[in-house]
Amino acid sequence: MEYKTDFLLERRTIRKYTPEAVGDDLLNDLIKAGSRASTTGNMQVYSIIVTRDEDKKRELSPLHFDQKMITEAPVILTFCADFNRFNKWCVLNNARPGYDNFLSFMTGAIDALLVAQTICIAAEARGLGICYLGTTTYMAHRIIELLKLPKGVVPVTTITLGWPAEHPDQPDRLPLEAVVHNEAYSEYSDSDIERFYSEKERREDSRQFIIENNKTTLAQVFTDVRYKKEDNVYFSNTLLQVLKDQDFMNQ
Amino acid sequence: MEYKTDFLLERRTIRKYTPEAVGDDLLNDLIKAGSRASTTGNMQVYSIIVTRDEDKKRELSPLHFDQKMITEAPVILTFCADFNRFNKWCVLNNARPGYDNFLSFMTGAIDALLVAQTICIAAEARGLGICYLGTTTYMAHRIIELLKLPKGVVPVTTITLGWPAEHPDQPDRLPLEAVVHNEAYSEYSDSDIERFYSEKERREDSRQFIIENNKTTLAQVFTDVRYKKEDNVYFSNTLLQVLKDQDFMNQ
Repeated sequence: MEYKTDFLLERRTIRKYTPEAVGDDLLNDLIKAGSRASTTGNMQVYSIIVTRDEDKKRELSPLHFDQKMITEAPVILTFCADFNRFNKWCVLNNARPGYDNFLSFMTGAIDALLVAQTICIAAEARGLGICYLGTTTYMAHRIIELLKLPKGVVPVTTITLGWPAEHPDQPDRLPLEAVVHNEAYSEYSDSDIERFYSEKERREDSRQFIIENNKTTLAQVFTDVRYKKEDNVYFSNTLLQVLKDQDFMNQ
Repeated sequence: MEYKTDFLLERRTIRKYTPEAVGDDLLNDLIKAGSRASTTGNMQVYSIIVTRDEDKKRELSPLHFDQKMITEAPVILTFCADFNRFNKWCVLNNARPGYDNFLSFMTGAIDALLVAQTICIAAEARGLGICYLGTTTYMAHRIIELLKLPKGVVPVTTITLGWPAEHPDQPDRLPLEAVVHNEAYSEYSDSDIERFYSEKERREDSRQFIIENNKTTLAQVFTDVRYKKEDNVYFSNTLLQVLKDQDFMNQ
């Protein structure tokens, strides 16, 4: 049997939601689908923190730079790499866990992300909308505090979830040949790069971005405004400190 | 419109494939669906290396500990965090990229994993089977060499893809309450842990694992045989060295 998947091609991120709730049974169905995603050695080293409480959302909001989806979406899901549960199981069973290292963090992060994306796709198939919050890796230390994450647990990504109250245009994507390499990586020539990014650069919203930010190229909007080196360096150090503090850097 | 998603609940990892090829158009459709996954700031900082060539598969095989899916599956996809392409675009456009740091690696890894899982789900909806290879993060240095990945590119995960030639039992999963926390992390008591893992421990295949490996508990099979501390430490250091070598640790 084949299943229709055109929603995968038609999807767009949803940042505005109706006030309608996402019922417990529905949320449960989505998480159940997520739990069937592949997981390293069937260890299932992830956890999901569900936020629905209005006060909790208000506390979470600044940790995601006050993106309004946090307080407006009915459900927030924070996906964590989690070896705490597995470690406890080991200790209770006379086994010595050796998962306080960077590889194990990556294992947990991969588990968490595959579950997250499966839940997103299950949600979109049901007509719900989602938005990923990249701020999770920037503010992991504060999220850990608020959500009371013990050692062995690090938040990796967050989604907001709800019923769409908007139908935005689909964003541009690079041509497939820009991201696919056959048999080995084919290094890009300058003209490849120009060709692959030309559609993005020609878009009206891109031109608008350049003007609004008083820049001369779209790339400068990324490097000088949206994803600046100094911020990346700062948040890299914060995140590496989080990995140490949460016991994932004892290699 | 709603889409049927029972295949998400019914899925299982497939390790045996028929000799039938996965056509170019089909593979293209899957990757196209994958490319619609969420991506940080629409930077699309990932790449996919497609391996179909028999010689290449044979070379890739030991880098994945000779798991036989590598040579038997018609298609192998290696998913990489990739800032190389974006950096080149920045430089060509008079912009100074600041993405040679750990946060940017995580950004690229997240992009790559969301695309990977979307492709897997699109594939399974079409009746194909997939298997994730966790060995990718262990052997990233060797995969980089073989697939000629330039600086700014790190492989994060790999899947084998093909038409199923088996229909294995579904593996066990922890009860949902074991992985879901409401509003804040609820720390596990010993009896929680015992309850959550009891089904897994009671399974016939788990008991068999214990006997075969001459252990007294299932947890010891994980800590002493399958995912040992010494291996985790070794591969953590290797992977951190890869991040340095590929220019992702300059924070």
